[in-house]
Amino acid sequence: MNDGPELAVVRLGHRPGRDERMTSHVGLTARALGADRVILPDNAGQSKATVKDITERFGGPFSVELSDSQKALIREWEGRVVHLTMYGERVQDVEEGIRETHREEPLLVVVGGEKVPFGIYEHADWNVGVTNQPHSEVAGLAVFLDRLFCGRELEREWEDADQRVIPTETGKKVEPTDSE
Amino acid sequence: MNDGPELAVVRLGHRPGRDERMTSHVGLTARALGADRVILPDNAGQSKATVKDITERFGGPFSVELSDSQKALIREWEGRVVHLTMYGERVQDVEEGIRETHREEPLLVVVGGEKVPFGIYEHADWNVGVTNQPHSEVAGLAVFLDRLFCGRELEREWEDADQRVIPTETGKKVEPTDSE
Repeated sequence: MNDGPELAVVRLGHRPGRDERMTSHVGLTARALGADRVILPDNAGQSKATVKDITERFGGPFSVELSDSQKALIREWEGRVVHLTMYGERVQDVEEGIRETHREEPLLVVVGGEKVPFGIYEHADWNVGVTNQPHSEVAGLAVFLDRLFCGRELEREWEDADQRVIPTETGKKVEPTDSE
Repeated sequence: MNDGPELAVVRLGHRPGRDERMTSHVGLTARALGADRVILPDNAGQSKATVKDITERFGGPFSVELSDSQKALIREWEGRVVHLTMYGERVQDVEEGIRETHREEPLLVVVGGEKVPFGIYEHADWNVGVTNQPHSEVAGLAVFLDRLFCGRELEREWEDADQRVIPTETGKKVEPTDSE
């Protein structure tokens, strides 16, 4: 998020049709809550288009990519790896250590789909549970990022947006930006 | 969450098939992150069954209901109403006021689906944006609850569970509970 080492999110696994919205929501949540980049499986072209469209309209910088070798990408990542899983250590116990490490090193956050291979658990520097309850990979990612950035992501400025929402008590207020 | 006035979540709008997973994830996120209850639209029976099944296996108390009159329920709610929307006031600006109010009064959190009627914006005590960016109603709910409860929801004890996940550095560790 602009001011530190990169934070990228990898979404593992995608079943076209069935997972379209979940995968799009992982990408949009990554963007909105301070990640620099999301890497989706190569069959998630429709989700990629959704995230790209929102970035063009509401600003960046944020990049969305497809990859046909996500496991290699995780293995070869030059930095630390967090895997979000309900089986992992409690986020409240490990977040401070991750935050400190991320001040110096890029961080890759792995968000599972269905079955995550055991090798991912082994390779990750941290397996982290946002609760040890089954809920939603989107919710887990959101809480993890908000905690990692201590809320600074909510103050982020957006560049090259066509429009911006003005926070308001009642109703909807959207303005064109004059950045062009 | 056990120790204070009720917190209920209403999920507005549901298109069977297309919204099944999003609605289930709203319900599961509400449960995992400290709500007492979720009320789904009456055509979301499959999502209700999913949330009920998880509650039976992983514990409660948590209740999931269907309602064919969600708007009346919101209108007649005896307590305060928060509507989560990307057009609302910034969560970081209003969360403290909401938290203080919720110490004394029940809180209903409205999570929109597609088009939310303008009457909901007017009726809500707070329209709240978890960022003013488009992302995910599941992510917005998750961050809102984590902030509202200041992380206390992560320490919650679960009753009447069949099994529980033991947080672990690598792999999966699940134990039957001896509550029965």
